[in-house]
Amino acid sequence: MAAAPLASLLLLLLLAAASPLSAAGEAHPGYSSGEGTCTVAGDAAASPLEERGPGRIIDITHAYVPDLPAFAPGAVTGPVVRLKHSMADGSEYNLSELKMECHTGTHLDAPGHINQGHFAAGRDVDTLDLDVLNGPALLVDVPRNTNITAEAMEFLKIPKGVRRVLFRTLNTDRKLMWKKEGDFSYVGFTEDGAQWLVDNTDIKLVGVDYLSVAAYDHLISAHVVFFKKPDIIPVEGLKLDDVPAGIYNLHCLPLRLVGAEGSPVRCILIK
Amino acid sequence: MAAAPLASLLLLLLLAAASPLSAAGEAHPGYSSGEGTCTVAGDAAASPLEERGPGRIIDITHAYVPDLPAFAPGAVTGPVVRLKHSMADGSEYNLSELKMECHTGTHLDAPGHINQGHFAAGRDVDTLDLDVLNGPALLVDVPRNTNITAEAMEFLKIPKGVRRVLFRTLNTDRKLMWKKEGDFSYVGFTEDGAQWLVDNTDIKLVGVDYLSVAAYDHLISAHVVFFKKPDIIPVEGLKLDDVPAGIYNLHCLPLRLVGAEGSPVRCILIK
Repeated sequence: MAAAPLASLLLLLLLAAASPLSAAGEAHPGYSSGEGTCTVAGDAAASPLEERGPGRIIDITHAYVPDLPAFAPGAVTGPVVRLKHSMADGSEYNLSELKMECHTGTHLDAPGHINQGHFAAGRDVDTLDLDVLNGPALLVDVPRNTNITAEAMEFLKIPKGVRRVLFRTLNTDRKLMWKKEGDFSYVGFTEDGAQWLVDNTDIKLVGVDYLSVAAYDHLISAHVVFFKKPDIIPVEGLKLDDVPAGIYNLHCLPLRLVGAEGSPVRCILIK
Repeated sequence: MAAAPLASLLLLLLLAAASPLSAAGEAHPGYSSGEGTCTVAGDAAASPLEERGPGRIIDITHAYVPDLPAFAPGAVTGPVVRLKHSMADGSEYNLSELKMECHTGTHLDAPGHINQGHFAAGRDVDTLDLDVLNGPALLVDVPRNTNITAEAMEFLKIPKGVRRVLFRTLNTDRKLMWKKEGDFSYVGFTEDGAQWLVDNTDIKLVGVDYLSVAAYDHLISAHVVFFKKPDIIPVEGLKLDDVPAGIYNLHCLPLRLVGAEGSPVRCILIK
């Protein structure tokens, strides 16, 4: 399992300088060999107990606030936390309770979300592969005039061997995750974009910047393509504002919710 | 902020060979220079897009199952997930809902948990420092015949500069997190153990293997000591079974629950 991606990655490093990527440039400047190396060099050079120093971790998770949009036209999330025991009311401790749909805010989908076969087979969030959820990732800029179509995917020229890609789109520019009400004019994967990704890349973690990996007109069909095999993890509602495109170490850690087909997730990038 | 710990860590590496640690040995074998270096060397040597390969991530989080113990004598957690929309019932998708107390299973405390001043000042889980929650950590074995007292802390001889320590205790041997009902004979920090840690170490992340960082007889008092200043993060209910003591890269990512004084958390170690 490890041999093929590693071989691809070696190839990738050789390809990076010569490929049209260098010319396209804007989509993922991290690929230019100098900048890409610098981006994570500090992390790689650390000795066992050496501290990273502050400011090298970038939080790409939205905070759970009542004004988060919900995935229904005009819907809002509302409070997800309430204080169950309160020191102000005489308790010896404060104790909060959490209640939310598992696809609220920054979250991920398990294969059972839109595939009943996978759901029945127990492919819940607790079965998701930590080796996919943690590792090198590429943050790319999708052209702002399009959904993530086959054509857009082809344009991005993401090399074979890259397993985690965060797709920044017009949704980030429009600050849709900061709008109180759900907005279904967001962009996302079309069915043919999803199929192109499955057929032509090694991507297993697909990060997007609104609540669904799929454009609204392809809501079920694009999910169906991603979940044909249970090996792709969509991570949705990421906060990608003000993060330079490039290469990072990604850590995306969902809760171990046995039986659930989705989970809130905390995602960070480390330079 | 970075200079002091870094200086201490350089000292630490020099001290490791000569200190009584090498003699004590069992508590944290990772400190022997050879083994410690090996433990995370593979990670440190990675090139920007190189994959780690499978099997190097250790999940130290308990799964959320109904049989998790709850923090009340004889209490159990019960289901935390329910299916709100079901494909088996004709929905186009499955959709789960999550409901739990924020101190269920593997979780962490924010300073407002037992300190009303910090709670009122908004010191919620969303203010916790990602630079503390992510970085090198030491897994140590606490002698099995004691709470984590001042004497036990002194015995462990954790060097200055170490900021994250996971304390494995008799709780792991007794498999208390696997017992259906809450068991208040668990071990944890006594008030004097907490005070010793605050006075004599640089530890800011305190990991333990049952539901509270504090022994039951010191439940409030030990928490009060840890939360005098809002800079220590207790991470509780960790799954430390079958993990060799030593040095790892720790990633502990709670949810961004604005207003909450605790959060479920996913924690992993990377070799």
